Amino acid sequence: MPTEEILSRTALNSWKLVIDRFSQAITPLSDEQLERQVAAGRNRVRYLLGHLTAIHDRMFPLLGLGERLHPELDEAYIKSPDRALPDPVSVTDLKKAWGEVNHKLTSAFEAFTPKEWLEKHTAVSDEDFAKDPTRNRLALVMNRTNHASFHMGQAILAK
Amino acid sequence: MPTEEILSRTALNSWKLVIDRFSQAITPLSDEQLERQVAAGRNRVRYLLGHLTAIHDRMFPLLGLGERLHPELDEAYIKSPDRALPDPVSVTDLKKAWGEVNHKLTSAFEAFTPKEWLEKHTAVSDEDFAKDPTRNRLALVMNRTNHASFHMGQAILAK
Repeated sequence: MPTEEILSRTALNSWKLVIDRFSQAITPLSDEQLERQVAAGRNRVRYLLGHLTAIHDRMFPLLGLGERLHPELDEAYIKSPDRALPDPVSVTDLKKAWGEVNHKLTSAFEAFTPKEWLEKHTAVSDEDFAKDPTRNRLALVMNRTNHASFHMGQAILAK
Repeated sequence: MPTEEILSRTALNSWKLVIDRFSQAITPLSDEQLERQVAAGRNRVRYLLGHLTAIHDRMFPLLGLGERLHPELDEAYIKSPDRALPDPVSVTDLKKAWGEVNHKLTSAFEAFTPKEWLEKHTAVSDEDFAKDPTRNRLALVMNRTNHASFHMGQAILAK
């Protein structure tokens, strides 16, 4: 297998591992467990699940992968702090959205060639990208992988 | 720049970003602030700093980069839960160790060619590596990057 192919597969595995771990830890939780806060007065696990689903859903246009699936989550889970707005969807629908969004993203990532991983994402200008070719799709996916790990560390504190 | 070179630089940037963010958030904290727990009854920030320093220090032999710098941290920060043992080093020395270990690792990573990123790490057998070439140095570094993000998410909850 060519070097560039192994490198991009290794990076993709990191995304897949983090998504799988989050899914295994969070999606089996009951409605009541998802209402728990990660620490006194902090975000509920349900908010973190909504937040990550919405942030990942935003990757479709950012990576040139078409339309978003769940823009209805942004108001409550990106633009507002936890509990400022009512939850826009049921727990069942939120878990389904999490699964759908990540499944569709992962399928698209698996089809990327190494060169396609290096295309620019739409949040960077042509000028900045010309100066720094590491501001590519892979950088965005690595960023979101670390962001998911960050909130996973919080979610497992809830009790 | 060749595709394989941009891919490995992009992945290395992800490590550097996470280490920088952790350093900026945690190393300015006072001794008193480092004694705070991330949530009631949970790890102190000082324990997380010790834990990440020790885990990163273990990467030297795992990646074939020579001897460890700070094996004295393992007993208190890897093998034991927080507060089971006295802190083995002062806060000043712990912050210094964090800086040293990550600086030396990052310098070594910056010198890796794309092919060197794909060498196997010493925690995988020759047989397993032959079956799965993604169990390489890059995979280990991506894993540790996500591990640092995981604990960073917890550390910022302390107050």
